[in-house]
Amino acid sequence: MKNTILVVGSVALDSVQTVHGRTSKALGGSAVYFSLAASQFTKVRAIGVVGEDFPDAFRSVLRRRNINLDGIKVMPGRTFHWKGSYDRNFKNATTIFTHLNVFEHFNPRLDRSHDGCGILFLANIDPDLQWDVFRQMKKPRLTACDTMNYWITRKKSALKKLLSRVNLLFINEEEALQFTKEHNLIRAARILARMGPQIIVIKKGDSGAMMFCDGKVLPLPAYPVEKVVDPTGAGDTFAGGFLGYLAACPDWRNFNALRRAMAYGTVLASFDVEDFSVKKTARLAKSEIRNRYNKYVRSLSIS
Amino acid sequence: MKNTILVVGSVALDSVQTVHGRTSKALGGSAVYFSLAASQFTKVRAIGVVGEDFPDAFRSVLRRRNINLDGIKVMPGRTFHWKGSYDRNFKNATTIFTHLNVFEHFNPRLDRSHDGCGILFLANIDPDLQWDVFRQMKKPRLTACDTMNYWITRKKSALKKLLSRVNLLFINEEEALQFTKEHNLIRAARILARMGPQIIVIKKGDSGAMMFCDGKVLPLPAYPVEKVVDPTGAGDTFAGGFLGYLAACPDWRNFNALRRAMAYGTVLASFDVEDFSVKKTARLAKSEIRNRYNKYVRSLSIS
Repeated sequence: MKNTILVVGSVALDSVQTVHGRTSKALGGSAVYFSLAASQFTKVRAIGVVGEDFPDAFRSVLRRRNINLDGIKVMPGRTFHWKGSYDRNFKNATTIFTHLNVFEHFNPRLDRSHDGCGILFLANIDPDLQWDVFRQMKKPRLTACDTMNYWITRKKSALKKLLSRVNLLFINEEEALQFTKEHNLIRAARILARMGPQIIVIKKGDSGAMMFCDGKVLPLPAYPVEKVVDPTGAGDTFAGGFLGYLAACPDWRNFNALRRAMAYGTVLASFDVEDFSVKKTARLAKSEIRNRYNKYVRSLSIS
Repeated sequence: MKNTILVVGSVALDSVQTVHGRTSKALGGSAVYFSLAASQFTKVRAIGVVGEDFPDAFRSVLRRRNINLDGIKVMPGRTFHWKGSYDRNFKNATTIFTHLNVFEHFNPRLDRSHDGCGILFLANIDPDLQWDVFRQMKKPRLTACDTMNYWITRKKSALKKLLSRVNLLFINEEEALQFTKEHNLIRAARILARMGPQIIVIKKGDSGAMMFCDGKVLPLPAYPVEKVVDPTGAGDTFAGGFLGYLAACPDWRNFNALRRAMAYGTVLASFDVEDFSVKKTARLAKSEIRNRYNKYVRSLSIS
């Protein structure tokens, strides 16, 4: 159990339009993207909520990857549904609508079956709920969270309370700058680290990611993808690859383990963007991950 | 002589304003930034033009780095003068004015003393002039050029003619996409490579750079800089570090040499942005470069 990750986040239906096509009510949500990536490395239990319309076929997709869905509650009503589109260069997502539906009343509850889960990932939800889950958790050995501009603007103090306790923060570049009122990522990361987390991972989209830990800075480029089809979920997939790999390491504080986690996060995210929804990450073979990881790490090894 | 780089480009006075201060008529220009970086690795001869107002002190800065200035002509009139400012996050430069002055009539001429220079760098000038210089050159073993949106819009066919002959193209991310009408850098690089150059280096500012060569892709992150003071000249400094290192390698086609060149370009550019004008790169010790290079390369070496 100490290597099991408990993830709390959204389970959603996504309708997405990009230059390469569109989906209608495809499987999505932060907990889903995260779980599929993390399950490549360790056991995952997901906590979330869906409506009565949530297709059994989507449950099967997750179960096939051995993700424990006991914590996914069915509530009367419809599943969270996001509709959005991306411009040609995938720099900007435009939300057409966000129907929270049953997610509006999401009230995550842990039970005895979650005792002993070693690792907690609080995906991007209301920081009050994140805090609530954090407090229900019994002595996890590693806790991590994500957030977004919406909460930074509206619930900054709740977010700060949470940050004072978690070990690791995943955050987007723009959000890190917004949160800290800074213009430089290193300074922003230093301010965020002073709020609590020992590790700050700043996600920069197709420019890669940066990790800050113990005063050390590690920037890594994105794995080059020639045909980006749909970037939805890339950040959560990154976090899943990162934490999933780290969960299986004896000491998550080890800097070399953390660097490999960055590389695995990068590689998993690169698969995610190559197709719509979870098409690629739901049926990814370990050998595909290993091959791309080796190629990526080799290319960066300059001697 | 076969390791000597001949660089043709602008020698300028730059008046720059950033959040960290301002300069007035400081030393600048593509040939200057390039030469200072490249001179750390190999011999450099610069070709350019200045006005009668060009300060002797600036000549001394370049001579101190052993840069041959015999090809810098003095013409009646004033030196090229650019005035601009950067916003807080250094994403956008606003040009306040560009006084071309003597640079408007720049007509670079090679003479016998340039015979045998092994390497040619055509900095960002009118592609007709770049072509003219290219044709005056006697069998260089490596030729490289840079360009900008202005020429891509106005002189595309002249630029294409040049690209059909040079070995290496340095180009900004936005310019590569504009040139090729593409939205993905890998596809853009492939199109550019089909025009001629065996090596395409796409500069992405604080997101690093990407090299394309023989179908291989190498993305590298920027070296993390905590206090960016003035990004002017970072691209030319990158090219100087890249080509300077490569000039001293026995075979510039060697992929490992090219990867090290990418890392040296990255490191030199990181010094450039830490102070105004050439303040940092004009007096850089070999040991500073070596230390930062080692730190950068070590951080990327994941095992």
